[in-house]
Amino acid sequence: MTRDPMPNAFVPGQGELGPTETAMVERRQRLLGPAYRLFYETPVHLVRGEGVWLYDPDGNAYLDTYNNVASVGHCHPRVVAAQAAQAAQLATHTRYLHDGVLAYAERLLAHFPAPLSHVMFTCTGSEANDLALRLARAATGGTGVIVTTNAYHGVTASVAECSPSLGPGVPLGPHVRTVPPPDARHGDPGTTFAAHVQAAIDDLARHGIRPALLMVDTVFSSDGLFADPPGFLTPAAAAIRAAGGLFLADEVQPGFGRTGDQMWGFQRHGVTPDMVSLGKPMGNGYPVAALVLQPAVIAEFGAKARYFNTFGGNAVAAATAMAVLSVIEDEGLMANAAQVGATFRAGLAALAARYPALGDIRSAGLFLAVDIVTDGQPDPARAARMVNDLRAERILISATGPRGHVLKIRPPLVFSEDNAAFFLDRMEVVLRRQG
Amino acid sequence: MTRDPMPNAFVPGQGELGPTETAMVERRQRLLGPAYRLFYETPVHLVRGEGVWLYDPDGNAYLDTYNNVASVGHCHPRVVAAQAAQAAQLATHTRYLHDGVLAYAERLLAHFPAPLSHVMFTCTGSEANDLALRLARAATGGTGVIVTTNAYHGVTASVAECSPSLGPGVPLGPHVRTVPPPDARHGDPGTTFAAHVQAAIDDLARHGIRPALLMVDTVFSSDGLFADPPGFLTPAAAAIRAAGGLFLADEVQPGFGRTGDQMWGFQRHGVTPDMVSLGKPMGNGYPVAALVLQPAVIAEFGAKARYFNTFGGNAVAAATAMAVLSVIEDEGLMANAAQVGATFRAGLAALAARYPALGDIRSAGLFLAVDIVTDGQPDPARAARMVNDLRAERILISATGPRGHVLKIRPPLVFSEDNAAFFLDRMEVVLRRQG
Repeated sequence: MTRDPMPNAFVPGQGELGPTETAMVERRQRLLGPAYRLFYETPVHLVRGEGVWLYDPDGNAYLDTYNNVASVGHCHPRVVAAQAAQAAQLATHTRYLHDGVLAYAERLLAHFPAPLSHVMFTCTGSEANDLALRLARAATGGTGVIVTTNAYHGVTASVAECSPSLGPGVPLGPHVRTVPPPDARHGDPGTTFAAHVQAAIDDLARHGIRPALLMVDTVFSSDGLFADPPGFLTPAAAAIRAAGGLFLADEVQPGFGRTGDQMWGFQRHGVTPDMVSLGKPMGNGYPVAALVLQPAVIAEFGAKARYFNTFGGNAVAAATAMAVLSVIEDEGLMANAAQVGATFRAGLAALAARYPALGDIRSAGLFLAVDIVTDGQPDPARAARMVNDLRAERILISATGPRGHVLKIRPPLVFSEDNAAFFLDRMEVVLRRQG
Repeated sequence: MTRDPMPNAFVPGQGELGPTETAMVERRQRLLGPAYRLFYETPVHLVRGEGVWLYDPDGNAYLDTYNNVASVGHCHPRVVAAQAAQAAQLATHTRYLHDGVLAYAERLLAHFPAPLSHVMFTCTGSEANDLALRLARAATGGTGVIVTTNAYHGVTASVAECSPSLGPGVPLGPHVRTVPPPDARHGDPGTTFAAHVQAAIDDLARHGIRPALLMVDTVFSSDGLFADPPGFLTPAAAAIRAAGGLFLADEVQPGFGRTGDQMWGFQRHGVTPDMVSLGKPMGNGYPVAALVLQPAVIAEFGAKARYFNTFGGNAVAAATAMAVLSVIEDEGLMANAAQVGATFRAGLAALAARYPALGDIRSAGLFLAVDIVTDGQPDPARAARMVNDLRAERILISATGPRGHVLKIRPPLVFSEDNAAFFLDRMEVVLRRQG
């Protein structure tokens, strides 16, 4: 049988759970079935969230260093209030005129370069990427899709087959090719990445498949986080366009200011995508997502077909997302991501100088990755131990990458210098204990 | 060019819009692009909703006889309060333990026959049907899908190609076959429908395609509403199972008590589906949807793959959906749907006896359909005129069916006898005026 390769998945029967949590795990299996996964050897039972903190029923506080959905902080009062006020007033869809969705669309699009002038609303990042595939096929007449080795783009049938990180139990489509992510440790990443994309285009052609889309998370989150040097995406975007395909920036993880210096991950590379997908942090937990696009992309599709997503862009989604944008701007969260991200990274580097288990460190703003190694080699088992030992210290992170040996640190953007110092202190305790 | 066949779509440049609305239409086209559609020759501009009423900026009240999303009434205070309270407390996902999603799953599953014992959460009905396709393929090893002539099952790439109502601009998949809906006016619908399904199975076999799924809206909403006589689905479900495929009941439109005598449309036919998809009314506007299934369906998928939907089943979704279930039960909305639905139908029948433009009437609880005819023949233009004339009278309905000549009346379940009387009064005004 093929293995589900999810790092940091709870294995029922293992871990030390109290009677309440043991009963909850049993109810989950009975009610939700076998495809659901919990995090950690000992899953975390949560009842409350506030800012960067999550609380269990005993009142223990966990420092959330992982959840980018609650990007402006768990239960941000301004976002909660905007959502509640609109829910009490009107929650209809986009087949009636309503100012909220238009006002939000204007405000959101102002954060994009001019050619990206349309936005279409969905409920999830999966739906946004799925729509991108539909539009790319209509616009190019092709079907071929190129993604990275351990990409994740969502769970609909069409995007799951473009998501190799879901493992061999979820086969890639026959029209899907994978390329290694741009890793600056192995040659010039821009040139190398473009060469791999070109090779994938050539291989598609050899199978009679016209390319439709190059689809990348612009910081390559699930591949292990690759963001530097700035500019490395440009040659690959040129290659797919020269072959008649489109370039999609999947900003579900890097977007909305997380990378610090820019609102979107693609901006550090000076490239303007044909489409940009947005998701997780857009509504701080409310299910809202979007696809931003250049008008040429939808000319063909829009002339012969319609798109309607019942809940996508409804009045509450728009009001909630509007409040999130306001908080990001008013609280200076991009600048905070840049500043705290830099301190945090420096602190990790200082630890790495003293603990050889910490290998390469990569980051962009408040998205940080640390390779866990033994004798310089990837050590997924040790990474899993680190994640679970930190969870015992009430710090929440996870692991990622094709081998699962990369610590993934992705806190809410309201993360402070003090929070980073607390994390580093706990991490040193864990490293010292592990020896 | 192929035509987008959506009934009741606004055509920009037509209709009489005020300056505010004209500007909004222009902003929509510029911001949202060409794939978005508004309802009505003169689109409705909404700012507020309460119960069965929607309000424009001038304070005009529209009787909502169409929106089944706000199924327990627009902005129901109990649902709004539950959503706001949970959003202020915690909104994390299903990879942590949280009681809310389990409590809701238990409560929801209690409304299903025992074999349907798992529930998986998504954000939209499209995602639920898309997941059903993935599971059906894994469980059966087949790929073939059978749907009705004018079916609508959603907008992801995989379900859009199973949704002929989207028109020729959205091609069906090569593995998709269509069958006419069970129409009691043309022979015994159970036998006839099963024969059509068997013919589709045979045609798939002739193309080397193994069947995976028979997927039907259990009241055939977009085909024109076919709900009677009870029991007609049983032979078709047996036929697809005999061929190794599964049977999915799409309850996105009929579900949650709308049909009056039962919580789910499939129950009137005495058949237990392998899977049941839920959507629109589940959260009264909050984006929450689900797939309910028999454990055997997911055994194969769950053994080798995982399913995670970031927002699906989050704590706010569960709390909101729980409040909706409570309101349906505590306010007796199923009984209301049965009773008001019957009165409403009788009133329509009385009108039809006097106005020959009203043809066949079909209904199940508070889901009603009236064929609009001229000399006994379907008259889509007249149906469109009726919809727009009613909109001018501040009554909101729409049209459906493959020819768009069927009035679709699908009010919130809190619809009263007085509301029905008001509708019938306005309809008679329109009929009399049309002559």
